[in-house]
Amino acid sequence: MGQFPINLEEAIEWLASFGGESDGGVTRTLYSQSWKEAQQALKGWLEEAGLLANYDSIGNLFGRLPAANPNAQTILIGSHVDTVKSGGKYDGAYGIISGILALIQLKQQFGPPAINLEVVSFCEEEGSRFPLALWGSGMMTGIYSFNDIRDIKDSEGISFETAMMAAGFGLSEFRVRNDIHTFIELHIEQGPTLEKVEKSIGIVKAIVGQKRFRITVNGESNHVGTTSMKWRRDALHGAVNMIHDLYKSVKEYDEDLVSSVGQLFVEPNVPNVIPNQVQFTVDARHPNESVLRSFCQQFTEMFENHAKKLDLELKVEMWHEVQPAQMDRKLNETIQRICTQNNFPSHWMNSGAGHDAQLFARICPTTILFVPSQGGISHSPLEYTSTQDLENGLGVLIQLLHQLAYNC
Amino acid sequence: MGQFPINLEEAIEWLASFGGESDGGVTRTLYSQSWKEAQQALKGWLEEAGLLANYDSIGNLFGRLPAANPNAQTILIGSHVDTVKSGGKYDGAYGIISGILALIQLKQQFGPPAINLEVVSFCEEEGSRFPLALWGSGMMTGIYSFNDIRDIKDSEGISFETAMMAAGFGLSEFRVRNDIHTFIELHIEQGPTLEKVEKSIGIVKAIVGQKRFRITVNGESNHVGTTSMKWRRDALHGAVNMIHDLYKSVKEYDEDLVSSVGQLFVEPNVPNVIPNQVQFTVDARHPNESVLRSFCQQFTEMFENHAKKLDLELKVEMWHEVQPAQMDRKLNETIQRICTQNNFPSHWMNSGAGHDAQLFARICPTTILFVPSQGGISHSPLEYTSTQDLENGLGVLIQLLHQLAYNC
Repeated sequence: MGQFPINLEEAIEWLASFGGESDGGVTRTLYSQSWKEAQQALKGWLEEAGLLANYDSIGNLFGRLPAANPNAQTILIGSHVDTVKSGGKYDGAYGIISGILALIQLKQQFGPPAINLEVVSFCEEEGSRFPLALWGSGMMTGIYSFNDIRDIKDSEGISFETAMMAAGFGLSEFRVRNDIHTFIELHIEQGPTLEKVEKSIGIVKAIVGQKRFRITVNGESNHVGTTSMKWRRDALHGAVNMIHDLYKSVKEYDEDLVSSVGQLFVEPNVPNVIPNQVQFTVDARHPNESVLRSFCQQFTEMFENHAKKLDLELKVEMWHEVQPAQMDRKLNETIQRICTQNNFPSHWMNSGAGHDAQLFARICPTTILFVPSQGGISHSPLEYTSTQDLENGLGVLIQLLHQLAYNC
Repeated sequence: MGQFPINLEEAIEWLASFGGESDGGVTRTLYSQSWKEAQQALKGWLEEAGLLANYDSIGNLFGRLPAANPNAQTILIGSHVDTVKSGGKYDGAYGIISGILALIQLKQQFGPPAINLEVVSFCEEEGSRFPLALWGSGMMTGIYSFNDIRDIKDSEGISFETAMMAAGFGLSEFRVRNDIHTFIELHIEQGPTLEKVEKSIGIVKAIVGQKRFRITVNGESNHVGTTSMKWRRDALHGAVNMIHDLYKSVKEYDEDLVSSVGQLFVEPNVPNVIPNQVQFTVDARHPNESVLRSFCQQFTEMFENHAKKLDLELKVEMWHEVQPAQMDRKLNETIQRICTQNNFPSHWMNSGAGHDAQLFARICPTTILFVPSQGGISHSPLEYTSTQDLENGLGVLIQLLHQLAYNC
């Protein structure tokens, strides 16, 4: 390949070479050397493609195909350039690359659009280096400000501000845009649904809301052999009763609800001592905030009952919360028509993971499209989507942008 | 106090000074310096009391009050001198001290018995330094041999044999005794039963059998947000269902059954990933082997059903097993009569912890008597039994030995 890629398959490998690792993984955390090189390389490609390339003051990179009318609003397309540690080649990258390729093709084929088309490579979404996610889209949508990064450090003690300035950003005031008319993100699914239902395009109805809790159960430790069952205050017995009934109650809700215990610690965690403390997390997600809230309230009451029955102390703390985001129905219906016309089997679904699109949904019509993830695997060097599936997604995006920006 | 203690209270503090720590804890692991000093000090006390003191070839210490008849058999009384790391003052020590004080008093008051009375300070019971418990009584009863310690090392890499020889033992062949007629052990309860039922002497019916298992549940890890509940192979969900039903099924048995999950590990143990592996231990104890076996078989089948239902892989490994040991009914009835005569409230119970007595039960009439443990606490610097309770236990022991060795 030359300096810049000429098709989707090449572009995925090209972008993955910035921060690429021997096992096929990619590490490109915010404001790192590999991150800088990736953004600079993307800027070069945008310029060579004849798009107006520029950064904003925090390092979001834009490539604009301007409308003839200088007062036109903007359809923004894109995703994030940062990765988790040892992530895959497709997460984020696919949304940027397909946006660039779409604009290149539309420019060549149809010239200037009636509304600005602009691709964005968001500086950060994952929250992998600093304990703050969705930085790029958060600033663009006016939901975050520089206040949100004060006192935030990475695991090596480097402050967010220092890292940002070392990369050449954060030096001027941030200007929130008021021309964004629509936001569209193309992304790998990162789950097994499309593969299981054998569809090639996922039309996202909503990005689910999330609530995450830390549950602490305190009892009393004693010798397992010498303490009769009736005199025990076994924290693990209590925790197990709670989690058992949590999974049981998930079934009573609709299939959009997911809830999980991913982390659990036992104290003192030795075979012949009754546990005096168990800490575990509960993660609950649903596209409807009131359903989610009622589920969480229900399991909290149920946990309290279990604690009382076994004479245990209970602490329930919510440490993370994200509101659900509804994707735009009209945009989705247009996507559905395009899929039907092209014979791309499509599937209406929710996104169980968070995305930049969830913040744009608060300020403008927004949607996100999924392509299948092999085995549902993501955030791993094993992340894979076939070239055919990637091309299908790009095809839908080009036709959607054509309808929105030329046939209007 | 002089060189040697003159009463129970003094003797407990005196013996605890060997390996004593600033917080009141005692560490006296097998063949260590503090262990050697304790055995040597006890030997001095036995000699000063006019008992025939000697070691066997592995470091069990004996003090004999001989019968006039040189062919008489022997009633052995005692417990172990070793402790766990940072253990209490009473565990083991009380059984040795009360044995010595009983023999001193019987000798002074009644002279030579009709049957040899011999106190033993077993070299090892806890298994705290080397991964082998009941070494002293195991050798005496012919259940262990030197073969059992080959290739065994402590956490610092010192072999069992090297440690034994450095302490001056293991140099000559071990001679199994064939004169033991009865074994009696006085011990703190190490559980809360006597305190809860407000009794001062525990008459032990049996030392429970133990089976310990390691259970491994394997599933598949996935993103908690993007994986529908119906496509999960959640190892923690499976483990929780198993443990929930384990505790439920314990209730269907008699109150002598105890079963516990003390240790549990989750992989990868992060809040937003479905666990792909859970490992946990099951400890089950009951005085009747066939009841215990049937319980373990039942939960194993139940675990298999749960694993099958959730498409999980299951491995069940038993890594520790101890047969139940029945204490001698006639000895216990004699103890009951002595308690009644002395107005000591007594309680028939099982021992949920292991003791030297469990091995002697295989070769001769054996019993173990308990005195209360405050708060059920043991293996801790907080271990405590009131002087009154210790004196009551000693009183019963003296009267029991009087009946067995003088009134026969």
